[in-house]
Amino acid sequence: MQTNEAFYRRYINCLNSGNLAGLSAFVANELAYNGREITLDDYIKSRLQERKAIPDLFYHIELLVTGEDTIACRLHFDCTPAGEFMGFQPNGNRITFSENVFYQLSGGKISAVFSLLDIDAIRKQMVNKTS
Amino acid sequence: MQTNEAFYRRYINCLNSGNLAGLSAFVANELAYNGREITLDDYIKSRLQERKAIPDLFYHIELLVTGEDTIACRLHFDCTPAGEFMGFQPNGNRITFSENVFYQLSGGKISAVFSLLDIDAIRKQMVNKTS
Repeated sequence: MQTNEAFYRRYINCLNSGNLAGLSAFVANELAYNGREITLDDYIKSRLQERKAIPDLFYHIELLVTGEDTIACRLHFDCTPAGEFMGFQPNGNRITFSENVFYQLSGGKISAVFSLLDIDAIRKQMVNKTS
Repeated sequence: MQTNEAFYRRYINCLNSGNLAGLSAFVANELAYNGREITLDDYIKSRLQERKAIPDLFYHIELLVTGEDTIACRLHFDCTPAGEFMGFQPNGNRITFSENVFYQLSGGKISAVFSLLDIDAIRKQMVNKTS
């Protein structure tokens, strides 16, 4: 559906712009993130933390499929963590990894996120070769 | 698109039926699996290995979104590995985990697969508490 595709591209633009308060236009006040009930504030705080850990964080849409109330996206990241990310300490390396993520919409906003990151790729690239 | 949804549901039925030779109706002779070039035979062999490792393997479609030449699915698994799976030894535990997977179609068959499994969930459930 064109509408949800446009909605999602605006959401990603909002994330990439760093205007995280703007996420309230896209994300419900309460949502389930990988099965955990969180608030919009929690969601924004997590995105803020990621931007602090990865100053050059940029969401690149690789594949996007949208349905009536479901959006699926494969995101690609090419970035250099400067702080702890996914429990790993930064080693100065530029890393690339993917995220396969599904969203469920309700009332025109994201009410559930089911995200899987390529943790093995992140681990391989972030674990310091000298350790 | 209804057509690709029906195609995908038939593909999953084929996997669940155990008639792996039947996968040739759904998967191209050559495909890219997480960026690695493999053949249909390689693909069938991998699925056979998984069925040996997990005799009660069953693909449950949790979320499905289809586009013109892309399919996205969140699959849920609830099974008891009897052999090595994803590098982990079986511990007799019943485990549950998700897979977020994208497929690209070409000529009416799957020509690329981008799969991410919830490795952390598998690790937590398969690593033997006594080891």
